[in-house]
Amino acid sequence: MSVPSATVSGYARRLDILRSELPAEGLDGLLLSRLSNVRYLSGFSGSSGHLLMLPERSVLFTDFRYEEQAAAEVDPAIEVRISRDGLLAEVAAFLDERGLSGRLGFEPESVTVRERHELGELCDRVTWETAPTWVESQRVRKDGREIELIQRAAGIGESALEEVLSAVREGVTERTLAAELDYRLRLAGSGPPPFETIVAAGPRSALPHAQPSDRELRDGDLVLFDFGATVGGYCSDMTRTFVLGRAAAWQRDVHEAVAAAQDAARRVIAAGVAARDVDETARDVLRSAGLADRFGHGTGHGIGLEVHEAPRIYRRSDDVLEIGSVVTVEPGVYLPGRGGVRIEDDVVVEEAGARTLTRYSRDLIEL
Amino acid sequence: MSVPSATVSGYARRLDILRSELPAEGLDGLLLSRLSNVRYLSGFSGSSGHLLMLPERSVLFTDFRYEEQAAAEVDPAIEVRISRDGLLAEVAAFLDERGLSGRLGFEPESVTVRERHELGELCDRVTWETAPTWVESQRVRKDGREIELIQRAAGIGESALEEVLSAVREGVTERTLAAELDYRLRLAGSGPPPFETIVAAGPRSALPHAQPSDRELRDGDLVLFDFGATVGGYCSDMTRTFVLGRAAAWQRDVHEAVAAAQDAARRVIAAGVAARDVDETARDVLRSAGLADRFGHGTGHGIGLEVHEAPRIYRRSDDVLEIGSVVTVEPGVYLPGRGGVRIEDDVVVEEAGARTLTRYSRDLIEL
Repeated sequence: MSVPSATVSGYARRLDILRSELPAEGLDGLLLSRLSNVRYLSGFSGSSGHLLMLPERSVLFTDFRYEEQAAAEVDPAIEVRISRDGLLAEVAAFLDERGLSGRLGFEPESVTVRERHELGELCDRVTWETAPTWVESQRVRKDGREIELIQRAAGIGESALEEVLSAVREGVTERTLAAELDYRLRLAGSGPPPFETIVAAGPRSALPHAQPSDRELRDGDLVLFDFGATVGGYCSDMTRTFVLGRAAAWQRDVHEAVAAAQDAARRVIAAGVAARDVDETARDVLRSAGLADRFGHGTGHGIGLEVHEAPRIYRRSDDVLEIGSVVTVEPGVYLPGRGGVRIEDDVVVEEAGARTLTRYSRDLIEL
Repeated sequence: MSVPSATVSGYARRLDILRSELPAEGLDGLLLSRLSNVRYLSGFSGSSGHLLMLPERSVLFTDFRYEEQAAAEVDPAIEVRISRDGLLAEVAAFLDERGLSGRLGFEPESVTVRERHELGELCDRVTWETAPTWVESQRVRKDGREIELIQRAAGIGESALEEVLSAVREGVTERTLAAELDYRLRLAGSGPPPFETIVAAGPRSALPHAQPSDRELRDGDLVLFDFGATVGGYCSDMTRTFVLGRAAAWQRDVHEAVAAAQDAARRVIAAGVAARDVDETARDVLRSAGLADRFGHGTGHGIGLEVHEAPRIYRRSDDVLEIGSVVTVEPGVYLPGRGGVRIEDDVVVEEAGARTLTRYSRDLIEL
């Protein structure tokens, strides 16, 4: 499968926007260590990399294992250095060679206390300052290529789900269904799964983060699938809940309430809307159904190069939705000992509303 | 599959050992945030948790999603608190309620600069100090139950590999083989894979961290599988390299040299041996074959609750091998544009030698 890269000018533009932020904080450069930010700015997808952005140039530091991969992936305007003794030591050696000093920013959300100490020891001519979450803020507004990749990931997820439903029957285990789903996701072109696929049936569907177990499905079980795919590093994330056999009245009632909450939340989404109002909208519908106290998590989160990123849609969020954000909408109701229902879609925030990328039916399907 | 838990007394003993370390550093308690350490000390396997260890008690903090899981998994001697507004805020609330102050240790390798700042703001009666890597040091010496879990993970890996070899033929892609292998690992009882399965064929086998691609296998390709399984959170990690069709002379030569280096390294392993001597042993054999400059990574690493943990077996390692450690031995030779060979086993360090857990043939097999 061919995956469009951001164009060279795309990476350069992102770096230019970032560079334009430096003067406000009095910084001479920035050391990026959050891998999703490194990938966003350079194209590099390895698991070990730092990007040093200076006024005149940018340098990617990685290790031996990624030498060929970095050469193939990284924007040619960015220099690549291969470290032998650790990435931070290589950054320090580079700064020393060039006689660079001044004020450099680092990312306090991803640098550990140990690494911060090392930076101080290794690069003693540099003053290290905490930098704002500039890159995360850029990433909130996706461009057309990014949305296309998420759309493709969502499509892979939907076709894999459809294929796996034929394997749902009495006696099959959650583990087997999760293995089948992961298998079909990969064959359909997904990269590494963005999180561990959840298949939870019967009372276990009431665990919002259940790990697939060896429990065998029984007639009348709720069967919940929560899973994602990745394309070019961009994640999808969706949930559907089915019933094996005929649905009981309580299962229909809970599913209907969750679907109504989810629909209402998607309808209220648009650029400029407070994320907490989206959460409150979903919660209000469940409150009317007497189920609000069984909805214990937030309504959604941004997705992109990470499966959980800004904005956050929950009760105390201060985020305001921006054009081009892609967010999940995923209310759920969990009845301990009986079962749970969650319905989750991925939507793009547009000027006047939300465009839903995941199109799989939200009806309660009896399998 | 039933997975033995550490017995209650097992967790209590680990906490007691840790508690006995506190006076040497003048600490009144410890906040553990590295998830593998939290699991090692409490049994909790969720993705969000902090463990506060005080002289008289220990408290696990997690969030709503893991309420039932924590109740099921955590040693009953440990109190569980469910956070609503973030784990660190809940830790602070607990310390406040109890009027606790004094000197508490934190883990500088896993606490970010942002979190360290939050700790200071939220818990202003406590003095926070960096703690030594006490738990990692305990984890280096595995007990019988831990070694059994790694052995089971290794066995799952070997049977899954055997099954997938029947699918290796001209025209099949790396992606398909990786999907098949992951599928069989899960069906055979593996938990989440400890890292992304590598299947790399032909020239791509020369990339030590290749991601499975859509390249189709051709006659004469080297085909490298590097993958692991997990049982009860414990990881295996193994690599085998095959040839599709008849092996060329250079492929036989490289494979033979790597196998000899790997064998020599395993033979030198025993309690009390310097890790760097194990590395040097493998490197020496490859040097004799004129291939040492094509072996660009270390010879191995510890495995356990993490797939990379102490000890580290590489050129500059200061580690000394201890009884009960489980380590990988994985020299490789990479010829850019042609292909690479790596052979990796998991071995237990014993008093007088190494016991190899992975038993799959190390001959060059033509498929």
